[in-house]
Amino acid sequence: MTLVSKNVNLLPNERLDDLLTYDLHIIQSREVFSFSMDAVLLARFAGLPPRGRVLDLCTGNGVIPILMTTRTNAIIDGVEIQPRLADMARRSVEANELEEQVHIYEGDLRNFHEQVGRGIYDAVTVNPPYMPAGSGDQNENEHFAMARHERNGGLDDIVAACARLVRTGGRVSMVHRPSRLIEIMESLRKWKLEPKRIRFVHPHAEAEANMVLIEAARDGKPEVRLLPPLIVYNEQRQYNEELMNMYYGDRRPEMRETSS
Amino acid sequence: MTLVSKNVNLLPNERLDDLLTYDLHIIQSREVFSFSMDAVLLARFAGLPPRGRVLDLCTGNGVIPILMTTRTNAIIDGVEIQPRLADMARRSVEANELEEQVHIYEGDLRNFHEQVGRGIYDAVTVNPPYMPAGSGDQNENEHFAMARHERNGGLDDIVAACARLVRTGGRVSMVHRPSRLIEIMESLRKWKLEPKRIRFVHPHAEAEANMVLIEAARDGKPEVRLLPPLIVYNEQRQYNEELMNMYYGDRRPEMRETSS
Repeated sequence: MTLVSKNVNLLPNERLDDLLTYDLHIIQSREVFSFSMDAVLLARFAGLPPRGRVLDLCTGNGVIPILMTTRTNAIIDGVEIQPRLADMARRSVEANELEEQVHIYEGDLRNFHEQVGRGIYDAVTVNPPYMPAGSGDQNENEHFAMARHERNGGLDDIVAACARLVRTGGRVSMVHRPSRLIEIMESLRKWKLEPKRIRFVHPHAEAEANMVLIEAARDGKPEVRLLPPLIVYNEQRQYNEELMNMYYGDRRPEMRETSS
Repeated sequence: MTLVSKNVNLLPNERLDDLLTYDLHIIQSREVFSFSMDAVLLARFAGLPPRGRVLDLCTGNGVIPILMTTRTNAIIDGVEIQPRLADMARRSVEANELEEQVHIYEGDLRNFHEQVGRGIYDAVTVNPPYMPAGSGDQNENEHFAMARHERNGGLDDIVAACARLVRTGGRVSMVHRPSRLIEIMESLRKWKLEPKRIRFVHPHAEAEANMVLIEAARDGKPEVRLLPPLIVYNEQRQYNEELMNMYYGDRRPEMRETSS
């Protein structure tokens, strides 16, 4: 672990993790859902304006807004329904001294437009719960269950919220499970979000995809690009070059000499 | 070129091409559309029953039915709207002495069910024209234009025909351009064909997909698998191992010793 910023305010059972890029850090805890590779890939994949306003729904501990500050000067809002996670996200923003650029709201994406207005964002990102309500292990801790299962609105509610909040021509980017691809497509089109770029993520070159990244344009014309597959591990079971760059950015060991 | 079978009946400007697998041959001509890699990949990808009845729509010169005889003992029907291509397909079937297994119909897929009935096939394959009617070069030869452009019904007509002709639980497999993926998904679902397996084909590992293979199940439940990417060329600009196996099957040079 690297040096802790003066602004870090940790509660019991919390730790400050190094995001391993641009000296960013994040507060995490074993008691709640921690961010995963999915969030990192979405933060790198999403089409973002150089400035303007960006929104991250289901922001959790705020990892996506924090990572996106390395790619845009836009104001980034994050919305999280769980008070504990929203609080962790706010303290992570403070720990990185990003309070001017990143604002965390505790709220429900289904009525967030009542608070901020419709069509006000240039880009929206979302790493939603992957599993339908009621599926999976019902004995898991409530914080994990809410992050994994569609307890507070299903996929279609989430897509509808993205569509309400993004401006015409603005971008909505999502990471999800490929098994739900058809449902995602159907919901996006229903809400006038036209898929423009899709990238599948495969654990290795001979494996089925276990993640899909999708970017859609509000009121865009129909024509989608299928990007090169993103292969996580190479034949030596190490992260592939591209993934290393995504994860570590300016902090890759061999890049330190040239980084600012 | 290998030895010509006793049954080959070539018209002017036609040639007999070696399909390079299982001693199969096909009649082609520069004057009409020749089969491409798309057809070969679809013939290998499609879910086929070991016996029963299989249908290939937009069969062209019959390459897909002929290649599929190496994978199934089912009766395989092919439907082609262009008389010249249907005739070439029939003569190719004769050249391979496959008349008992493969039957070529000259007809329009939009009313083919009136001739044979609804829901009678265990599997349907189709390599349709990729471009909407009216797009592209309008000066091209009529045979090419009909193979490339949706002159005789658009994508939705083709999907509807597949859905009418396949039985409940039967499989429909298609090859198409990824740029039309969203439209394909929408049309499949509209006609109760649920996508189950999708595979993208990339010219090389760092390229966008230029082909998509999709298998759907009539009245299937929603859950799709995204197969490993099919990468055509390796870094040495040679066909990848998997593609070599698809193309050449038992005829690969290093496999000849063990082939029957």
